[in-house]
Parts: sequence; structure tokens; C-alpha cells
Amino acid sequence: MTKPKAVVLLSGGLDSCVTLSLALRKGYECYPLSFDYNQRHSCELDSAKSIAAHYNLRHKIVSVALDEITINSSLTNKDMLVDLDEDPYRAGIPSTWVPQRNSLFLAYAFAYAETIGASAVFIGANQVDYSGYPDCRLDFITQMELALNYASKKFVEDNDVTVIHTPLISLTKAKIIDIGLQNDAPLHLTHSCYSGTVPACGECDSCQIRLEAFKNLGVKDPILYR
Amino acid sequence: MTKPKAVVLLSGGLDSCVTLSLALRKGYECYPLSFDYNQRHSCELDSAKSIAAHYNLRHKIVSVALDEITINSSLTNKDMLVDLDEDPYRAGIPSTWVPQRNSLFLAYAFAYAETIGASAVFIGANQVDYSGYPDCRLDFITQMELALNYASKKFVEDNDVTVIHTPLISLTKAKIIDIGLQNDAPLHLTHSCYSGTVPACGECDSCQIRLEAFKNLGVKDPILYR
Repeated sequence: MTKPKAVVLLSGGLDSCVTLSLALRKGYECYPLSFDYNQRHSCELDSAKSIAAHYNLRHKIVSVALDEITINSSLTNKDMLVDLDEDPYRAGIPSTWVPQRNSLFLAYAFAYAETIGASAVFIGANQVDYSGYPDCRLDFITQMELALNYASKKFVEDNDVTVIHTPLISLTKAKIIDIGLQNDAPLHLTHSCYSGTVPACGECDSCQIRLEAFKNLGVKDPILYR
Repeated sequence: MTKPKAVVLLSGGLDSCVTLSLALRKGYECYPLSFDYNQRHSCELDSAKSIAAHYNLRHKIVSVALDEITINSSLTNKDMLVDLDEDPYRAGIPSTWVPQRNSLFLAYAFAYAETIGASAVFIGANQVDYSGYPDCRLDFITQMELALNYASKKFVEDNDVTVIHTPLISLTKAKIIDIGLQNDAPLHLTHSCYSGTVPACGECDSCQIRLEAFKNLGVKDPILYR
């Protein structure tokens, strides 16, 4: 029997790496998909490449001109500073918010899924630690799944649905890491730092949340920090 | 009073040109947005530029790497032939179908709308003449509007909705042209031919539908044909 195919959004961060390990464990033939949107932390693309190579998977990187139209995000506008003193657990939408980023990534994923005949799309979205991002919430993903299926050939012709899987949506960062360790996910290859430095800065939102989670698990984070 | 802002998707074709003329007549400050996705008929981008210049509007063209992941469309894969003998009014999805094209365009439009503070997005989608395209149907657009609002900062923070306007959705091509003529829309600057030639081929789906509509109106199409 041939394996079902899945497009897996792979940023190169911790969550997408664990998501890929889960999709593989579930028996999918995985097609990791990454995006180059001139992000501040573009070295995460090197991580994505390394993770895909680790699993010996065909990896697609698509250039997305998000920085041209989203000038207000500190993640794509390198003239803006990421506020390292921001409380990572504060309320509200962070300055690193990139409008419609996951909308675009999911639309590309569905286009790719139709091209290769995939029945599933995996995304490591998480509404716990990063609840400030509107497009990481399950109600957005559910609505987007419906919309994108309405624009899918196989849905229109055969009522055949492409499913968006969000296995991490309600998990804590510590639980995500725990699953990654169980699955032998190559966490040492991941990159999470929003400052875009290697070694990681250890100070931005993303680094703080990651370090805290490893600490809670009593496990040493395998990546390097400054 | 400042005018409300609108992002207007402008392909450079007849429908988007008439849509822009309608948005302007409704009193919007319009921001035309076009996409370069290595389309066969890329000369439509020159038309989009000319139309935006005609109205003296700031025009944004975004590069979209659709051709990298949608190898099965005759519109982006130049090794595939557009079947000029296809009946333009046949049932089913045409070979020129590009998966999730309007999903991507609308996601970009919402990202741009958030950046410039626009309250509306106009798209010249039409489910009458091109009913073969799943993403030109109103039920898709309605679902997508909801999904993209779920991922919008102002919706999450202030329950403020960005509306997708589809003024042409149920109109015949003849009616669309009629409205364009009423609005003094620069129809002579539009490009519709899928073969991507100037003068237009006069034979592809798009040319046939356009010519038929002008004929029904008893008006001469102002563009050149071979």
C-alpha cells in the first residue's frame, strides 16, 4: 500500500521539527515546505534544510515577498528593533506579528498539496505560548481549512477534503519538546531565536520560552547560546 | 473627511479594470495590487501598470513563486500548451487552473490592507463566464473573507471587519463591459489573452468570451487582435 502524502510546513524551529517527526511517525510520506520571506531570522532556513536532510526528504523552499507589503513588522523590517525587554507572556499582539503569514503559508501548502496529490497539511501552530498571534489560533486554522478546500479541485470535483493537522495546537512548549525527544526529532538542528543569530541570543521571546521549557523538563537544550 | 482605503486586485484584465473603476466611483482611495507569478500572459502586468497610471494611483506588484509549486497548470508551465480548441463554455476545471491562486492573492491583499489601514478589498472574480475556476465562486470568497478576518489584527483586537467586495461576481461579461463603458474605464489598456500575445490571439477561451460580449453589446473591442 502506498503511504498517504502530507505537506509539512517546516520553518526550522522547534515546533515544526517536532510536527514533522509526528507526521512521519503517523506514516505519512512527508514533503517539507519552507518559506524565504526575508525574515530577520533567515538562518532558520538553514535549520529547515538540515532537518529535511536528516530525514532524507525532498525539501521545497518558496520565496514569499512578504517584506514588501508588511513594513510594520519587526520580523521582516530590519530597521525595526525586536524589543528584547518585552515580556514574552504579556497580552496582545507582539511587534514580530507578520500579517497573514500563516494564511499565505497554508494557501501555498494547499497549492503544493494539489500538485503532488497530498491529502494532509501539517502545521506546528500553537496557541498556548504564542497566543498573541491571531493566525496561530485553532478557530482561524479551522476556518482557513474550509476556505482552502472550497478552492481545491478535488473538493469541488470529488468532495475530497484536504485536512490541516495541528498536533501541537494546545500543547505547552515543554510537552512539545518531550514529544520531540520521544520521537528522536533532531532538536539539535532547530533554530528558534528571533534575533537571527547563531549561537542564539537567549534573550528574545522565543529563546526565553524555549529555555524555560527545557529547564522545566530538566533537560539541556542541545543548541548553542551566546 | 478622509476617504476609506481599498486594496484592489488588478490583473490588468477587463474585469479587474472595471472593478477598479467601480471602487473609485464608490469613493474609495484605491491601492491597486498586482502579482507577477511568471504567468504565460505576463504582458497583462504592463496593462495593470498602464491602468494604475491612467488613474494616477500608487501601484504595487508582488512576486509570487506560484510556478515553482504548481507545475500542472498550462498558465504557468510554458511547456504545456493552452488548448485553443477547448470549448470555453464546457463544464469542468480548465487546464489553465492555478491551484489556490485567488487564496494567495486575497491573503496578500489582506496583509497589504492591514499595513496601509484599508477597510476593503476588491476582487473582480466572476462565477458566470469562468465557473470552471473553484476560487472564483462566491461561497469560496465568503469563507475566505471569514478566515482572513480571523487572522487580522483589527478583527481580533477591535472586531473590525475587512470586507471583500466582489461587484462582478454574478454579472455576464457583456454587463461588465457595459459598466466599464459607463464609468469611462480605460478598457483600451486591458489585456485578456491567455496566449500572452500582443495583439491578442482572438482564439483562446478568454479572447472568445471577451469578443462575444463586445459583439452582443454592439460595441467594438478597443484592443488589437491578430
